[in-house]
This record gives sequence, C-alpha cells and structure tokens, in this order.
Amino acid sequence: MSTQPSAVPSGTLKSVKGRVLLTAHGMNADHWRRMLSQDGRNVVLEPSGEVDPTIDYAVLWRYPHGLLRRLPNLKIIFSAGAGVDHIMSDPDVHDLHANVPIVRVVAPNLTQHMAEYVVWRVMDHHRQGIAYRQLQAQSVWESLSQPTASEVTVGIMGLGALGRAAAEKLLAIGFRVAGWSRTPRDVPGVESYTGEDGLTPFLNRTDILVILLPLTPATEGMVNYSVLARLRQNGPLGGPCLINASRGRVHREADILRALDEGILKEASLDVFEREPLPEESPIWQHPRIVVTPHEAAASDPDHLAPLMLTQMEAYERGEPLSNLVDRERGY
Amino acid sequence: MSTQPSAVPSGTLKSVKGRVLLTAHGMNADHWRRMLSQDGRNVVLEPSGEVDPTIDYAVLWRYPHGLLRRLPNLKIIFSAGAGVDHIMSDPDVHDLHANVPIVRVVAPNLTQHMAEYVVWRVMDHHRQGIAYRQLQAQSVWESLSQPTASEVTVGIMGLGALGRAAAEKLLAIGFRVAGWSRTPRDVPGVESYTGEDGLTPFLNRTDILVILLPLTPATEGMVNYSVLARLRQNGPLGGPCLINASRGRVHREADILRALDEGILKEASLDVFEREPLPEESPIWQHPRIVVTPHEAAASDPDHLAPLMLTQMEAYERGEPLSNLVDRERGY
Repeated sequence: MSTQPSAVPSGTLKSVKGRVLLTAHGMNADHWRRMLSQDGRNVVLEPSGEVDPTIDYAVLWRYPHGLLRRLPNLKIIFSAGAGVDHIMSDPDVHDLHANVPIVRVVAPNLTQHMAEYVVWRVMDHHRQGIAYRQLQAQSVWESLSQPTASEVTVGIMGLGALGRAAAEKLLAIGFRVAGWSRTPRDVPGVESYTGEDGLTPFLNRTDILVILLPLTPATEGMVNYSVLARLRQNGPLGGPCLINASRGRVHREADILRALDEGILKEASLDVFEREPLPEESPIWQHPRIVVTPHEAAASDPDHLAPLMLTQMEAYERGEPLSNLVDRERGY
Repeated sequence: MSTQPSAVPSGTLKSVKGRVLLTAHGMNADHWRRMLSQDGRNVVLEPSGEVDPTIDYAVLWRYPHGLLRRLPNLKIIFSAGAGVDHIMSDPDVHDLHANVPIVRVVAPNLTQHMAEYVVWRVMDHHRQGIAYRQLQAQSVWESLSQPTASEVTVGIMGLGALGRAAAEKLLAIGFRVAGWSRTPRDVPGVESYTGEDGLTPFLNRTDILVILLPLTPATEGMVNYSVLARLRQNGPLGGPCLINASRGRVHREADILRALDEGILKEASLDVFEREPLPEESPIWQHPRIVVTPHEAAASDPDHLAPLMLTQMEAYERGEPLSNLVDRERGY
C-alpha cells in the first residue's frame, strides 16, 4: 500500500478555517488554545471589548454574559464542560443568537470520569467508609454490618449519557439500579421511572441517590427536603445517602443539612454547590457525614475535548450536519 | 401438578446425618449453630475435653490446636472463613488426619464481598480520596490531577476465585488489570504473569497492587520491601498504592511503613495485619496514608456458608464426591 501526499496543499484550506474565541475561566486556557489551534486555525483567547465580526466559533466556560453580543457572525457555540446552564442562562443566546447551534460536550473521557466518580462515592457509602475512618481515627478495631451490593439499590436521577454509563458500571459491580428521568428511557438492567408520577416510587426504593440531572428551570432546587424525605428509610445501609455530581443549584444545601441533622439522610457526597468555590464558612466543609470534592467529578480535559470540537468545526465547514446539539426547548 | 409427601419418613434419614463440631471463635456461634442444624443434624458447640468418637465433621475458625486429636473419627474438615492457613498450620491435620478431606469456603457471597472491598479501595486510591479528605479537613477548594481508569494498571497477586472476581469488576469499570499467580491462570482481559520470572515485569507495570494470595509457607512475608520497591514509580497516580485483603502474615508491616516513609509507596489500604486485632500502639492506625479496616473485607456469613457445608455433608452421606477440596501439596 503506497501513500500519496494530499493533492491539496494545506495552505489553500487554511483560508476556510473559521476563527475561534475561547473563554474558559477556571480552566487551563493555554492548553485549550494549543489543542484548538492544532489544525492551524486561529484561536483568540481574550475578547477585545469591541465588536468582532471575524469570530466564527465560541468555546465557552464561565464567560461573562454580554460577550456574545459583540460576536455578530457567530456560527456555533461550544460548551467547554459538561452542562450548558452557563450558556442557556445568557439572554444573548435567546435573541441575537437564537438560531446559532449550541454543541454540548459528549466525550467518552468525560463520561468515564463521571462514572468513576459515581462508582467511587457509591462504594464509599456502601462499604461504610465514613464510619470506618472515624473508627480508625480512634484506633478502634470494630466490624460493622456489611450488606452485599445486590441488597442495595442505587437510584440515578437523570439517565442521559452520564447516568447510563454510571448505571452500567454499578450493575457490573452487583448493585440494583433504578433510574428516574423526565422522559422515558430504556436502559438494560435498570428499573426506570418517569415524570412526576414515577418520582415517589423511585425514591421509596432508593438507598443511594445519585444526581446527574442537567440544571434547567425545571430541575433548579429539585433535590429538596421533600425529595430526601421520600428515600428508603429501612434499607440495609442504616439510612439513605445522597451523591450530587451535576450542579449545585439542583439541590438545596439547607435541606440537605436539615435531612442529615434529622437523621433521615445518613450521608452525602457533594461535588457541586450552590456557590462555588464552596465558601470557607459553609458548615458543609466540616460536616462529619459529608464528603466534599471541588467540582472535579468530571473535569474537562482539552486533550480529549478539543479534537471533538475541531471535528465538528470541520464538519460544519464541509457543509455537514453537527452532532450533540442542545435542544433549545428542553434546555439541554 | 400434584405434590406427594415423600415416601421416606424424615425420621429414618435422621439417623445417618453426621454430627458436627463447630468451633468458630470471633464469629457468631449461635447463628452458625442454628444454620448448621437446619437439616436436623446435631451440632456440638464446645468440645468436651475428652476424646469424642461421635463427631463426623468439624467446622473450624481460629480453633485451638490439639482439638482435632480428640476427634478420631473425623470425616471432613470445613474452614468457616476464607483461607485455610489456620488449619494447615495444625500438626494434627498432617499426621492423625492426613487423609481427611479439607473443604475450603468458595461462596458467591464471600467472593462478592471481597470483590466489593477491592473495588472500594481501588477507587479511593484512584480518585485520590486520601488527599481530598485532607483538603476538606482544611476547608481547601483545590482540584488534583485525575487520570482515567484506562491509564491505571491494577495488579492482582493471586488469581483464584477472589482475584478473578475482583479483576472482572475492575475491567468493567475501565482499569487495565494485570495478574500474578504461582501457576499459569488465564483470565479474560487480564495480562497474566507467572512464577518468579513473571514477578518483576508484573510489579514494574503495577500502579495499584492488590494482594489476594493465600497464606502458605511460600507466601509468608512475600510482600516485602523488595516487592514494593519494584512497583511502577512514574505512573499516573504519582506513586504506587498497596491493598492487602488476604492475610497479614503475607506482608511485612515494617517494610510497608519504610516504603511509605521513603516515598516509593504512595498509600496503602490494609484489612489484615501481622497481629489482629491491630495493636493500639501500632503506628499503622494513625498513619496519614494508610486506610485501616478490621479484617472485614469478606466476613463469613453463616446464612450463605452453612447451606454450602450442609450440601457437602449430604453429598458425602450419599457417597458422592466433595468439591472445593484443599490441595494438601499446594497448601490451599
């Protein structure tokens, strides 16, 4: 098999490569820029403050609203991390750019990281990590009762790509898995519940509740006291546990603390918070039954994500359809 | 479909049911006795101190050596927990009872518990649980670098039923899995190494070392400084980790502490110790990079194990072969 150099000199293609504006606060911008300019395209890091009609694509994370107003010729908006709530809450997206496609991150690497986080936290609650660490701190040798995974039901709220990947791994470990979603989802091995009617039976059988819901007006504050109070109380772990790896504004922290204090919630693992970074004075930091991680369940890795974005830009430039588009009606 | 009562009155069968001596220190003896006498057989809890020719079966855990000398008509020896080192170290087993079959515990429930423990500890090292808990204790919001499971190799020493079950679950989560065993073992998806020659290449590629070896004269003290020093030093976790869920006498605690202090070992999870309970004065209890659990990775549950023993006793009484026998040459 012989290989021929491409007949089209790369220089002639360069002219059709759209320009990218990258605004990714809290991420490694240089690393992102390097990865996005790999195919030779121009990547602008900081907006000029002026109207810039030369920008074709925006790759966004925690960007200042108002920015998109200055990009009149925007052709695609990319979210640089899981979730598009930071974009959907920008009014410019809904008027000036009402017809601009918004691309979500759907990356094997990010999905895998999230599923790993969920498995980690589920196993730690299941195997009584918090209690054993407290015993170790006191140098106390004492065995706690230990149910088998098959006696424990993990209930996942949100059965998108992330929820399904987590469910598969939990099933492989041996857990019973239930799922709840807004619209019916069929995931092999998962007992699925849907909509308002399905919520109570779903919660009633759940020992470990995993939140993987997108943040939308419909889910904001959804994980409240009323939801926590419906989790299975007589389960094998001695009380239900909560894991939130989606967005902090999906839960109500005051309600989580109340449920822990009242004993209707045994433990929680929180990766996301109503305010981030979690304020130093928050009682969550030093709560003995909460495990805090700093919104790192599925960090965005430009090595994996930038090539997926470039593939979509190149598809657009060839007049081909885009994938993983946000449904503007649904909000994610 | 009609059901007929059995033609043989149960009373006539009772006379052939062998008598059981149960000596299970540190376990719930009453629970064990209830489960073992379920089929109507006689279960003796405490030995009389005299020679007792009426005992057919011994179910043993942490029993005093010398006991078996007083049971001249013993037909089967059962271990009540994972591992037979407590039996194989008894001289009476090798002279007076040299021809008595010894039955190991091979129970789905015990295997599942062990695999869950391994997954729990692997995930905690992989997701940097120790470091994140230290950050939380200081109310510090800081993300640590996070490799994907596919970048991390878990090396399992011992590929028996326990090692294979743990390997399957770790593969389903996404880890690379290597295995080392005394005799060649073929486990799907696991890169297997064998014998003395295979040990160095196995260790050199291992980021998280999981010990599931039986305790035998060949494995006693095997996990020493020389083994720990050969683990992969430039791996994605910033240093190798050790998990021992087999027997404490397989490792050398002084060597583990030295390897941690020298930084060639990053962290350890120990469920078993050279002396148990772990003495209060042991520096292991309060070591910031060791997670201690009290030999509870796979506790023996009589609800699951006693029926398996009764099945074997009944098979023996019908003249059928036994399963899961100890290979006396091999020692396990």
